[in-house]
Amino acid sequence: GLFTGGLGMHGGAERLGMAVIPVSGGMTDRQLMILQDFAPEVICCTPSYAQTLAEEMIKRGIDSEALAVKYAVLGAEPWTEAIRQQVEQGLQVNATNIYGLSEIIGPGVSQEDCEEHGTGSNIWEDHFFPEVVDRDTGEPLPEGKDGVLVFTTLTKEAFPMVRYWTNDICSLHYDSDGKRTHIKMSPIKGRADDMLIIRGVNLFASQVEALLEDIPELAPCYQLVVSREGSLDQVTVRVEVEETVQQNWQSLEPNTQKARTEMLANQLSEKIQGNIGLRMPIVIENYGSIPRSQGGKLGRIHDKRNI
Amino acid sequence: GLFTGGLGMHGGAERLGMAVIPVSGGMTDRQLMILQDFAPEVICCTPSYAQTLAEEMIKRGIDSEALAVKYAVLGAEPWTEAIRQQVEQGLQVNATNIYGLSEIIGPGVSQEDCEEHGTGSNIWEDHFFPEVVDRDTGEPLPEGKDGVLVFTTLTKEAFPMVRYWTNDICSLHYDSDGKRTHIKMSPIKGRADDMLIIRGVNLFASQVEALLEDIPELAPCYQLVVSREGSLDQVTVRVEVEETVQQNWQSLEPNTQKARTEMLANQLSEKIQGNIGLRMPIVIENYGSIPRSQGGKLGRIHDKRNI
Repeated sequence: GLFTGGLGMHGGAERLGMAVIPVSGGMTDRQLMILQDFAPEVICCTPSYAQTLAEEMIKRGIDSEALAVKYAVLGAEPWTEAIRQQVEQGLQVNATNIYGLSEIIGPGVSQEDCEEHGTGSNIWEDHFFPEVVDRDTGEPLPEGKDGVLVFTTLTKEAFPMVRYWTNDICSLHYDSDGKRTHIKMSPIKGRADDMLIIRGVNLFASQVEALLEDIPELAPCYQLVVSREGSLDQVTVRVEVEETVQQNWQSLEPNTQKARTEMLANQLSEKIQGNIGLRMPIVIENYGSIPRSQGGKLGRIHDKRNI
Repeated sequence: GLFTGGLGMHGGAERLGMAVIPVSGGMTDRQLMILQDFAPEVICCTPSYAQTLAEEMIKRGIDSEALAVKYAVLGAEPWTEAIRQQVEQGLQVNATNIYGLSEIIGPGVSQEDCEEHGTGSNIWEDHFFPEVVDRDTGEPLPEGKDGVLVFTTLTKEAFPMVRYWTNDICSLHYDSDGKRTHIKMSPIKGRADDMLIIRGVNLFASQVEALLEDIPELAPCYQLVVSREGSLDQVTVRVEVEETVQQNWQSLEPNTQKARTEMLANQLSEKIQGNIGLRMPIVIENYGSIPRSQGGKLGRIHDKRNI
């Protein structure tokens, strides 16, 4: 789907009377220049990109104390207290979590209070009715129990949702010590499906699988290897050539064979970039080299991250 | 500077009561999918990207007659009647020109009427006072004469501009046969400086030059070669290594030398991508191989396009 994060933040911040600098993602040099020149007090991005900015500032010897930025509103990816510490120290900010889904409203579903770190994010109950349900039975669970987060919209008109199943695993609770009376959701602890979140982009292995069909030389045998380079996630696609293609290739010169492999890899890489919007390194493998079904479970995703 | 095109169009279109799909640039597969699935009636992009879409639709056998899109509002680059024809036939649309500058307001400075193709774009004179002046003397020129377009804002409050020199070369005239009484500007016929417009991004050679300084192995001797691949512009940077670096390299194994060259090229490519936002192929040359000043004129830009 289309990413609603930036536009929602932009509109909301303007409603609050803030001046907004819409910088989009990436282009770290320019981001750092804008942080220095325009002196914003708040930055909004994914937690992993905030880590990247913190690391780059150290590399370039930019003093974070000299920046005006005081708050970081980070979302679109699950993150941990360790990442919060790294970002808060690296950028000299108070970093809070924001949670939202395009299907519900985009940004504006829940927000962590900057004075109540680690106690959960307030869900705006005047607009959304949240439940946490058992992932197998769908029955609502009591406060504090982990299950699938489900939303019903109360005020949305054009596209209301009843019990929208987010597949995010978390728990709900009322925090009597908090400043607000709205219910809080815990950090997201996992997914009830195999969706990956890579640099803020939602990714199912099946999306890559669907693109393989368009390239007849490739077999539908693949694996996504997820790793973390620095603070950014990277997905490498391992994919096999078809058995007949491989047989034909055996009679080719090694250089020609290499060129064919590179051409296939580029073709798939461009398809993925064009459809999913992520650049993924491609490794073309021999037929039969990627693990098949193991006890009924296909190892489509090999997650090497240690977040 | 920051690109104001998309946000301005988005806000303006919503004011008119239109539903807007903000898709950003690139990702042609997804753009075509959205054109088919969401059935927008208007598309807005650069003329060269509209050409790309038209070409890709032919390649993929997508029938443009089956699309709902009827109008293309194209800007941020100079374009010709030949490009208009290609886009209108390829996408089955009525294609008009939009002109704007971030410094004045972004989109909304002038717009061509879809029934008055090729007669110029109406400048909204209730908000902007346009003049065309002699590029040497700065004196205003009469209607129909080519010169530098200059704007004075009449209603802008926070950042008013008096005689803002756009460096765009065109002429102005009142069209008594037109539907509106506002003055019209001709298509942009060139620039009064050496600014290039590459895929909607304004680019001065000096921006690349400034980045060379950060890489001590590179000499400040460079050339930007502008070419057109399909319908998209491409800038290749030819740059020399420093004389001393080259002398040291001569004692290296060819493979090591090649690896060093690639490393330098990647370093510069990433710097350019991070600062300017364009991906440019880099060609590292021997010291002394790029033409020096020729009769006082530095051939920094070699434009091979034939638009």
